[in-house]
Amino acid sequence: MKALLIVAHGSRREASNEEIRELTRSVAGRAAGRYDQVSCAFLELADPNIPDGLRQLIQAGVGEITVMPYFLSAGRHVAEDIPGEIDLVRGEFPDVEIGLAPYLGLAAGVPDLLLQQAAVPGIM
Amino acid sequence: MKALLIVAHGSRREASNEEIRELTRSVAGRAAGRYDQVSCAFLELADPNIPDGLRQLIQAGVGEITVMPYFLSAGRHVAEDIPGEIDLVRGEFPDVEIGLAPYLGLAAGVPDLLLQQAAVPGIM
Repeated sequence: MKALLIVAHGSRREASNEEIRELTRSVAGRAAGRYDQVSCAFLELADPNIPDGLRQLIQAGVGEITVMPYFLSAGRHVAEDIPGEIDLVRGEFPDVEIGLAPYLGLAAGVPDLLLQQAAVPGIM
Repeated sequence: MKALLIVAHGSRREASNEEIRELTRSVAGRAAGRYDQVSCAFLELADPNIPDGLRQLIQAGVGEITVMPYFLSAGRHVAEDIPGEIDLVRGEFPDVEIGLAPYLGLAAGVPDLLLQQAAVPGIM
């Protein structure tokens, strides 16, 4: 089984974390044929954390996981913290394949998405 | 003249700020017919700040500006800080139209972009 784990920063505002869970459901609804499971985890301030998010997938029988950093730029979190937490779980489950995708801000479609979104009627 | 001002958080890592400037150039290259100018500004830690970014556009003759928050979730920065800085400049230039677009994370295309990016060969 293959899974996608969306990793976000996590926030003290529960509404922000709920936004990530809602996004995860939306991605899961489009992932048929690519991933058997789509879930999310948080670097800090919300549950599950990254190791627990990975372990839950592995315990559900997933053998191949892609971690997708839901970040727009490559700070320390993307460059060091997320790879470090992945390595921790790789050590625990050497037979599970865990890959790290490039963070969202690097996606080739970002400039077009930004122009589309700028044309949406504003909030003030 | 119409302009788009991309607003990012700003980082102590100059490479992150440079990524935003590079994105801004990329958006500018695709904005023909929609915006006469595309520039960027930062909430903190990098220049220009948001009021100065708006003033530079206005001093260049722009009469209509769309501010686009380059953020994935709606924390205090998106909900309070950016609108507050816009209001400051609205007070200085009441004849200039300054609109605030919804932040990038709300874009309808985000789930598909995320799935595309998850399929890009990873970094580890």
